[in-house]
Amino acid sequence: MRFPNVLRLLLIVSSVFSSVVVHSDEDPTTKIMEGFSGYGSHESQSCTSNSLSSMSVDKESLQRQIDELSTFSDTPAPSVTRILYSEKDVHARRYIKNLMGFSGLSVREDAVGNIFGRWEGYEPELPAVATGSHIDAIPYSGKYDGVVGVLGAIEAINVLRRSGFKPKKSLEVILFTSEEPTRFGISCLGSRLLAGSEELAKALKETFDGQNISFYDAARYAGYANDQEDLSSVFLKKGSYSAFVELHIEQGPILEEEGISVGIVTAIAAPASIKVDFEGNGGHAGAVLMPNRNDAGLAAAELALSVEKHVLESRSIDTVGTVGILELHPGAINSIPSKSHLEIDTRDIDEKRRNIVIEKIHQSAIAIAKNRKVKLSEFKIVNQDPPALSAESVIKAMEDSSRELNLTHKLMISRAYHDSLFMARISPMGMIFIPCYKGYSHKPEEYASIKDIENGVKVLALTLAKLSLD
Amino acid sequence: MRFPNVLRLLLIVSSVFSSVVVHSDEDPTTKIMEGFSGYGSHESQSCTSNSLSSMSVDKESLQRQIDELSTFSDTPAPSVTRILYSEKDVHARRYIKNLMGFSGLSVREDAVGNIFGRWEGYEPELPAVATGSHIDAIPYSGKYDGVVGVLGAIEAINVLRRSGFKPKKSLEVILFTSEEPTRFGISCLGSRLLAGSEELAKALKETFDGQNISFYDAARYAGYANDQEDLSSVFLKKGSYSAFVELHIEQGPILEEEGISVGIVTAIAAPASIKVDFEGNGGHAGAVLMPNRNDAGLAAAELALSVEKHVLESRSIDTVGTVGILELHPGAINSIPSKSHLEIDTRDIDEKRRNIVIEKIHQSAIAIAKNRKVKLSEFKIVNQDPPALSAESVIKAMEDSSRELNLTHKLMISRAYHDSLFMARISPMGMIFIPCYKGYSHKPEEYASIKDIENGVKVLALTLAKLSLD
Repeated sequence: MRFPNVLRLLLIVSSVFSSVVVHSDEDPTTKIMEGFSGYGSHESQSCTSNSLSSMSVDKESLQRQIDELSTFSDTPAPSVTRILYSEKDVHARRYIKNLMGFSGLSVREDAVGNIFGRWEGYEPELPAVATGSHIDAIPYSGKYDGVVGVLGAIEAINVLRRSGFKPKKSLEVILFTSEEPTRFGISCLGSRLLAGSEELAKALKETFDGQNISFYDAARYAGYANDQEDLSSVFLKKGSYSAFVELHIEQGPILEEEGISVGIVTAIAAPASIKVDFEGNGGHAGAVLMPNRNDAGLAAAELALSVEKHVLESRSIDTVGTVGILELHPGAINSIPSKSHLEIDTRDIDEKRRNIVIEKIHQSAIAIAKNRKVKLSEFKIVNQDPPALSAESVIKAMEDSSRELNLTHKLMISRAYHDSLFMARISPMGMIFIPCYKGYSHKPEEYASIKDIENGVKVLALTLAKLSLD
Repeated sequence: MRFPNVLRLLLIVSSVFSSVVVHSDEDPTTKIMEGFSGYGSHESQSCTSNSLSSMSVDKESLQRQIDELSTFSDTPAPSVTRILYSEKDVHARRYIKNLMGFSGLSVREDAVGNIFGRWEGYEPELPAVATGSHIDAIPYSGKYDGVVGVLGAIEAINVLRRSGFKPKKSLEVILFTSEEPTRFGISCLGSRLLAGSEELAKALKETFDGQNISFYDAARYAGYANDQEDLSSVFLKKGSYSAFVELHIEQGPILEEEGISVGIVTAIAAPASIKVDFEGNGGHAGAVLMPNRNDAGLAAAELALSVEKHVLESRSIDTVGTVGILELHPGAINSIPSKSHLEIDTRDIDEKRRNIVIEKIHQSAIAIAKNRKVKLSEFKIVNQDPPALSAESVIKAMEDSSRELNLTHKLMISRAYHDSLFMARISPMGMIFIPCYKGYSHKPEEYASIKDIENGVKVLALTLAKLSLD
């Protein structure tokens, strides 16, 4: 059962502009905004998509925005840490809403903080063409993941406006809430809900973060979910968008190594995540002799190594598995761990093969618990998503755009998941990748050149134009 | 080179008493103190140690003190967490100083917060007989470890006073600073310094905790080390005490299983601790393929399992090794760990055999780093202490006392280390163990019955009396 589209269209663009003037001292994003040039004057010219191949990206502004957004971080530069609904996240969101306003977009937000900036087309009753990504950042990561697809999308709108383009179908830029699972262990929280996950809407009523703060309390802190409301208000009907395109850094080394400007994504690998807890008796590290121990920490160490083993047993280069979180309790040098907690991420382009790995990990966890006489107190598959295929129509628009812009491109799969994985459930979907330094991501060394970003923005702008006129 | 004994004898007992009266609202320990009975009246009677066998322990007060001290904790009951120089530690120290004052002891503190309560003997020029233990508690531990040897020592003084005993050599109760290594990774910090560790005094100038707070700043917060002073002021000369005796729960199951009242410790196992750091390239858990990874977390998991392997290879029941701390950075489910940190504890009654285990762990760390192409950025042996033997004279006094009190006893070794390990460097040393539930320690289930504690206090009181008159 899908709920009808009951989105509250909060056209707050005028209040965004007035707040810039009236509250400039109170809003940390405003001062930065005032330094920008090129905003606020959007004179329309008549134009078709064909004339767009000469369009120009304001590289200097875009780079400055990327740098400025990275300062809304809980860890020092060059690292970026921006956790869902934190103070820094709230400031960053305000920064994006202000930028959307400056670009003439009508801004609305839903109950979990997905942010939508719409440029009304001249046939506004047609389903819009959407683009967007996320701005949350895992601890000690970089400034390009997600951000390029949000700031780049707003700049693509600016490019189209400057070129005089007029959309037929409306164009919409989306900032998705919590693509990263950092705070509540749920990846792509915003896009999953947009795609109508009733399971998630229900689960969020009883979801808490590591500090035991409920999802609703955290959301309220950031100004969302104010009335403990039913999150089905966030759901979008299938067909709400005629197409969705996401611009993103590759997060892999292929484009850079092969010297190719643009990756056209044909499929997104199927991700799954698992939480595991072991419990033992703990005790004093000096006094409890080895035969009397049931060490929850060593059980966790064994399971971490078995994840690697089972992934390698698949003998497929496309299967990956990672233990990114391993925590011991009480966490003292002279105390045998009485509890351990692991979070495991595994992905594959082949869903069945990935599910075999998950089952092997489960069997290993049971065997380790038995051998070590510890309790396997939790083995929870948090999510186990299928892969997604890009739509032929969107692939064609992206390929044509690359060709018209004289940019080299290749078809590829995305091993990282993205909000596009879930948008594909309700809309024809496609993704544009750009090269990034050594494929680095999720660390401070993450980097994409402004030239590569410019190429991506151009392909995105032209793709949006084509899909809008389609 | 040892520094002379330049201890500042701060006889603050009168100020302790006055503060109880004047500042009762400001001092959270004072209100608790006022509820006690039996303090403040210490009428002397002539008496010899022989008449002490009928002495009585105020079990009710002692149990109440143990319970009250456990409330100075950063985690909820029944767990206890009391970290060096934290607010709760400062309150707990004040509570102990007040108790010492009520028991008529002259209280002084040294530059790192070792606290000494002295009962002057009638030959005060003779080296004193000392007893004591610690009150810091690792995260989520129990309320008896260390505490029994501090509150029990003060009650032993009360027992002797009530019986009319007069010490020849002075008796001194010591609260040692930071027996647990929780905050700065250094175990027995206070007793190591008392024993004259110049290496440690130097190292503390550049020691920081996990929040990057320096040892000196932390100490100043608690009211110590105010002048960035040379910590050699803490050193005691060999011969400062004629004997040192520590009362402690066994932290092992032997006494309880065998139904024996008192353990007489003949030796303390040799402890060592090691810090290890691995570094890899990290990266995105979806995008970096398995052959391109160098996962610092999996290196840590392998090393943790190799610690267990090398300990078991010794084929000695007395060899133990534990990984109590294993931390991953950045610690996100979708991020390959780029850094890992382990803290390893290993002990043995045979120092040579323990050192072989340490060397094997080091070789494993090097091999794992090579195989996994991670960097072994640190392998630091934080301490590598020899074992300690109890003094024959102290063993005899403890055995005679047990016999005279009609309490069963057995000679045993201590597998856990204690401040006694370091006091043995400057004084004849002995330890009294009492049974504890299932041998549990360093967890909330830690428990010793008040009957067993009473027995320990009696043996301690009589042992102190014998050594004082010796």
